Amino acid sequence: MTLFTGLSAFPLTPLAGDAVDGAAFIRLVERLAAAQVDSITALGSTGSYAYLGFEERRRVARLAVEHAGDTPVFVGVGALRTSQVLANAEEAERAGASGILLAPMTYQPLTDDDVFELFRTVTTGTSLPVIVYDNPATTHFTFSGELYGRIAELPGIASIKIPPVPDDPQQARARVQEIRNRIPSHVTIGVSGDAKAAAGLAAGCDAWYSVIGGTLPEPALRITRAAQVGRFGEAAAESERLAPLWQLFADFGGSLRVVAAIAEQLGLAPEACLPLPIQGLTAEQRARVAEVVEELGLGSPGIGHRGP
Amino acid sequence: MTLFTGLSAFPLTPLAGDAVDGAAFIRLVERLAAAQVDSITALGSTGSYAYLGFEERRRVARLAVEHAGDTPVFVGVGALRTSQVLANAEEAERAGASGILLAPMTYQPLTDDDVFELFRTVTTGTSLPVIVYDNPATTHFTFSGELYGRIAELPGIASIKIPPVPDDPQQARARVQEIRNRIPSHVTIGVSGDAKAAAGLAAGCDAWYSVIGGTLPEPALRITRAAQVGRFGEAAAESERLAPLWQLFADFGGSLRVVAAIAEQLGLAPEACLPLPIQGLTAEQRARVAEVVEELGLGSPGIGHRGP
Repeated sequence: MTLFTGLSAFPLTPLAGDAVDGAAFIRLVERLAAAQVDSITALGSTGSYAYLGFEERRRVARLAVEHAGDTPVFVGVGALRTSQVLANAEEAERAGASGILLAPMTYQPLTDDDVFELFRTVTTGTSLPVIVYDNPATTHFTFSGELYGRIAELPGIASIKIPPVPDDPQQARARVQEIRNRIPSHVTIGVSGDAKAAAGLAAGCDAWYSVIGGTLPEPALRITRAAQVGRFGEAAAESERLAPLWQLFADFGGSLRVVAAIAEQLGLAPEACLPLPIQGLTAEQRARVAEVVEELGLGSPGIGHRGP
Repeated sequence: MTLFTGLSAFPLTPLAGDAVDGAAFIRLVERLAAAQVDSITALGSTGSYAYLGFEERRRVARLAVEHAGDTPVFVGVGALRTSQVLANAEEAERAGASGILLAPMTYQPLTDDDVFELFRTVTTGTSLPVIVYDNPATTHFTFSGELYGRIAELPGIASIKIPPVPDDPQQARARVQEIRNRIPSHVTIGVSGDAKAAAGLAAGCDAWYSVIGGTLPEPALRITRAAQVGRFGEAAAESERLAPLWQLFADFGGSLRVVAAIAEQLGLAPEACLPLPIQGLTAEQRARVAEVVEELGLGSPGIGHRGP
């Protein structure tokens, strides 16, 4: 099993009064290490990397590595400008990260050649393995299969984090195989979109880059471990059990605000832990989140275990 | 005529070797002041605000005000995080700007309430008038008419920069009137999308927030001045004359790369003046730009004037 397989858990970077709450972040990282996730990705989208300044990101990268014990830490280094990405990558390397995650953030739309050159420059500028972060919902950049192939050939590319797979299992398998055919065999494929993770693993993905894994590692690990030994029905059943949670993601504009609300409710993050202008959920939405947390037992010791 | 009417020219912020080329920026600003544009908006999308660091933006804001003479300067203050926006606004105010331009930049999608609170916070935090910058092609945020209305009611909102108007003149007028009906009468409406500027002014917009105006002020002024005295046919004819330029915008993914190539070709900006990862146009594309510059006489003294 390589570094870029299994469950990579994406912790929040909780803010308190517009500053990184280091103590809360450390607690999240230590929980993940204790739960024995396969890796921790600090400063992913869930970790609000795009909103944090260079110094904040350096500090968070260091805290993650210092408190993760033996668990490998990947660090998100994306930024709008290539030179900023290079500076973040250098700091991730100094912090002791085991890999970096890079999304082609955009303000002006980028061409395929712009994005290829970004990855070429960054893989040349760092000795760390690079995860290609394909997240069109936030970057508004769409990777073609051909561009996956060109980038994956670059020395240093270790993995691709792909968007949710299609619902239909056969189409999902075909999609993963189509990507697999374009990239070198040492490059792993990781699924994102938590609601589709069990389906993605069943369809042949090697890893799950997971939002809920960063706050609720146990249910994410149950799905991942079942899938890793081929018990895809069991993984699907656990994912199905969490359907009320996925429904919240669908209803409340994605996973970030919901997971932040859960972390706040469980006392893992201070109130209003997301960077403004993201206000987080309304009181009414939070009440629905609380119901789901209760219903699924997500707040119990051994969080998220089925009842006896 | 208020401050937020007529031609607001958006200069590039040329980079050289990943640093702001202050001398080139000053030359652009001085050209605009000499051409007697109605205002200069530094650090708009054309000015690459989203890619520049806090210190770079502070410096550019100061250079703009220092070299604009009597021409009012507006400064783009957008950023992903509210606290960063506030810091930029404070620096714009210190620099002596006459207004600020604020786009709701996104990485995570924002709700209407998030964006309203952003504008509420910023208008409360600055004494400068604020231009609401609606640029869905870069922010991926869509303003509803209702949100325009809520935000325009905030004290301190001076103008709204709207996306291109519909092609059909009647629909364009209806669109501008629909916005007008929702906002207080002291809030001006400015059109963007240079190819549709003459149409937008004819449809009742008070201002043109102009990309080409920042590099080629003369043709932009001819369109604006004709429209300002009700000679909309003349404005339309001048816009029509520039059709080959608008075609380049359409073919080469927007105005920024084309205008940067023109500035580079005219010696107004160093080669490769855009922030990486934006590579700018290819050699082949630049050859087409050169043809259009030649054809339209954009490089002549009294740039862009018709022949005798």
